[in-house]
Amino acid sequence: MTKPERWKAAVEDAMPAVLARLKDYVSRPSVSAQKKGIGEAARFAAALIAKAGGRAKILKEPGANPLVYGFFPAGTKGNPAKTLLFYNHYDVQPPEPLAEWDTFPFSAEVRDGRLFGRGTADNKADFVARLQAVQIVKDSEGGLPCHIKFLVEGEEEIGSPNLERYLKKYADLFRADGCIWEFGGKNEKGQLEIACGVKGIAYFELTCRTADADIHSSAGAIIDNAAWRLVRALASMKNAEHEILVEGFSDGIREPAPEEREAAKKLPFDEKVLRDVYGLKRPLITGKKGTDPREAMVFHPTMTICGIWSGYTGEGAKTVLPKEAKAKIDCRLVPEQDPVHVFACIRKHLAAKGFADIQVEWLNGQRAHRSDLKDPFIRHVIRSAAEAYGREAAVWPNAGGTGPMHLFGRYLHVPIASVGVGWYGSRAHAPNENIRISDLQEGILFLVHLLSGLSRLWPPENS
Amino acid sequence: MTKPERWKAAVEDAMPAVLARLKDYVSRPSVSAQKKGIGEAARFAAALIAKAGGRAKILKEPGANPLVYGFFPAGTKGNPAKTLLFYNHYDVQPPEPLAEWDTFPFSAEVRDGRLFGRGTADNKADFVARLQAVQIVKDSEGGLPCHIKFLVEGEEEIGSPNLERYLKKYADLFRADGCIWEFGGKNEKGQLEIACGVKGIAYFELTCRTADADIHSSAGAIIDNAAWRLVRALASMKNAEHEILVEGFSDGIREPAPEEREAAKKLPFDEKVLRDVYGLKRPLITGKKGTDPREAMVFHPTMTICGIWSGYTGEGAKTVLPKEAKAKIDCRLVPEQDPVHVFACIRKHLAAKGFADIQVEWLNGQRAHRSDLKDPFIRHVIRSAAEAYGREAAVWPNAGGTGPMHLFGRYLHVPIASVGVGWYGSRAHAPNENIRISDLQEGILFLVHLLSGLSRLWPPENS
Repeated sequence: MTKPERWKAAVEDAMPAVLARLKDYVSRPSVSAQKKGIGEAARFAAALIAKAGGRAKILKEPGANPLVYGFFPAGTKGNPAKTLLFYNHYDVQPPEPLAEWDTFPFSAEVRDGRLFGRGTADNKADFVARLQAVQIVKDSEGGLPCHIKFLVEGEEEIGSPNLERYLKKYADLFRADGCIWEFGGKNEKGQLEIACGVKGIAYFELTCRTADADIHSSAGAIIDNAAWRLVRALASMKNAEHEILVEGFSDGIREPAPEEREAAKKLPFDEKVLRDVYGLKRPLITGKKGTDPREAMVFHPTMTICGIWSGYTGEGAKTVLPKEAKAKIDCRLVPEQDPVHVFACIRKHLAAKGFADIQVEWLNGQRAHRSDLKDPFIRHVIRSAAEAYGREAAVWPNAGGTGPMHLFGRYLHVPIASVGVGWYGSRAHAPNENIRISDLQEGILFLVHLLSGLSRLWPPENS
Repeated sequence: MTKPERWKAAVEDAMPAVLARLKDYVSRPSVSAQKKGIGEAARFAAALIAKAGGRAKILKEPGANPLVYGFFPAGTKGNPAKTLLFYNHYDVQPPEPLAEWDTFPFSAEVRDGRLFGRGTADNKADFVARLQAVQIVKDSEGGLPCHIKFLVEGEEEIGSPNLERYLKKYADLFRADGCIWEFGGKNEKGQLEIACGVKGIAYFELTCRTADADIHSSAGAIIDNAAWRLVRALASMKNAEHEILVEGFSDGIREPAPEEREAAKKLPFDEKVLRDVYGLKRPLITGKKGTDPREAMVFHPTMTICGIWSGYTGEGAKTVLPKEAKAKIDCRLVPEQDPVHVFACIRKHLAAKGFADIQVEWLNGQRAHRSDLKDPFIRHVIRSAAEAYGREAAVWPNAGGTGPMHLFGRYLHVPIASVGVGWYGSRAHAPNENIRISDLQEGILFLVHLLSGLSRLWPPENS
């Protein structure tokens, strides 16, 4: 048997135990938003690390959910000067709405080759897969090629509010030379997706209050209306070509590097599939210049009305002049936009347009992050995927979504690539979340390739 | 005793019976929106007419709430060629929210000189007061100066959807030479208000649908957003100076007559009180020309966002690109705007601005109506109020609100003035609806003056 054949057999052999472990993990609800099962899940994650032969430690900052540290030392033939860090989280999204699940969200049932349950795809399967890959490499290669660390947090699904505190305090403990991020999977074309960055976010709420009480709408002839006012304020922020009109909003945006543009161009994109999946009624936004949608998804910041509400929203007609109107706005940011600056620009814009009375409340913000696609570690991840899956991965210079990657960049100065065992039908955050068991198996094998290959990327210093 | 002194004494004597009758009437819920107690209330109203010595008849169109007809013939010294018509309604608004009432809405309790209960001010006290005035005039003057008719409908609070059918069919039965409309009362200055018209309305709902499902907001870079689209569409309909930009919207607006302008100028208006009552945060709308707010309230049409909603409106941040956005819009119209034309203009406007996909759903519409302030009957009402109350009334060429007056104009060709026994604190449509008992008593006396005076306005033909 060749080495890859031996790895394949080892993964196959391990699958029953992997599945049993994963089902056990998924069956323990750990909903950070609802403060359910957090302590237990942290202890369980630590126990899984220990069972895989690693050293686990539960870190606990006051007022924060515990964070699990895991450590597997380099083998005697490995390079102890180099460290790979896995980032995972043991918390999951709330399972609601329960009625839309085909089976109980925490029953972890296998059906049609898939494992269903809240937290399967996001993010418990990845954690179990990674531990299994570490074990296989350690056993079959006579030790690990480098140190391997795990950072398993318990607040990812609520925006990682305390991650910075942990990273600041434990920067030395988590120091690493390459990082595998928590999420990923296969796209509609069956390609593995690798995200080497994320967009940032600035999320805020606008409140326009024109009176202390709702008023009979006949007064509309003389009394200003919070809803009209908010509508006008919003309309001043973005034009019909979807261009953001807030001065300073784009400050700091870094021109994409040539290799980033190149990668974006190679992303698969099928407008017809997109239109069908969501039942889109309008043309895609391509702007005046007819931008390629791939470029837009990766490199363009956004300003989205996530919600707006005012006055009477029930059945039929109620003649009311609303006292108050509110909107929730999310801006997806690209490197190096600063969410705090964006927030300030929006306030300034509103004041300049005569809407100084409209309150802007900061809900949350994170910077974008991109790793250098030319970094040897990133290239190693991409190469390992091609090797293991037998085809090129789709490489996102940054995903369209957001995560706390910039904190790892800031405190650990580490190149980061995100890969995982999900697929485009995983329904993360939605009812009937699932993974395909075949993806899980392939994903472990890919990680074995990736880990073993680190002995070439980071050879022992005296070799 | 002078005649007015005798009338005053008669009203005083009648008060205990009036109150008992009114409490009985109020204690019978008759909520048209909830289809509660409708038949019973119609029979009770008919019985009250009969008890006052009139002839009552319950008219019933299929699918419509019954409508009560009442008739009191002219006395032998009266003019049988002339008829006064009273318009009332026996239905009331829903009492909800119940928790905000100090006492049960149908317990009809007297407290601090006021009678509390749903339907007191709107519109049961007026009906009882009018019947009492008719009785007093009939008894003290040896018969009525003209025929008196009542039209008591049971669907006023749900927009009088069947009134036109009744009026069309029974136009001869209700034929009259002057009409007293259902509502009215005293303003903050203690003046009686007389409304000689109402504004019309066009109420519709806008729906913008851009997808069949909500989408993760990261897609905002390439997928259009229903909320943004609706915001832009709305912003195209009205500018920052509150001018309505919909072409054709103002078609047909009739220049106010000199006496209408004169009346509007004399209306009391206290900006400070208005600001305090509603806690207004913004300057009043006066437009570029600095229009007088009285003029605006009477003569300007409006376009009000009564409600708007889209996407996520709960606590905190949810990153969603909404599939749909909706708004409820009410336009208050002035003579001779046509609500159907207004509706068509709005659809045309949206299409012209590139929003042909936004659906416009018609919820309801009514034309405005104004009676001629120079009409002898209208002048008689105004004069009688001055005589009975000892001060000039505030005359509204039309109120800011809406009612089915135009139907009476169309089918009965009758001058109409609206007066009532409410006050500015009556809280019609709101919890703790009430009337002041002293207003009820003065209101009956005023109606006695008004009715008796008809013998001068409409002297018997052979006198």
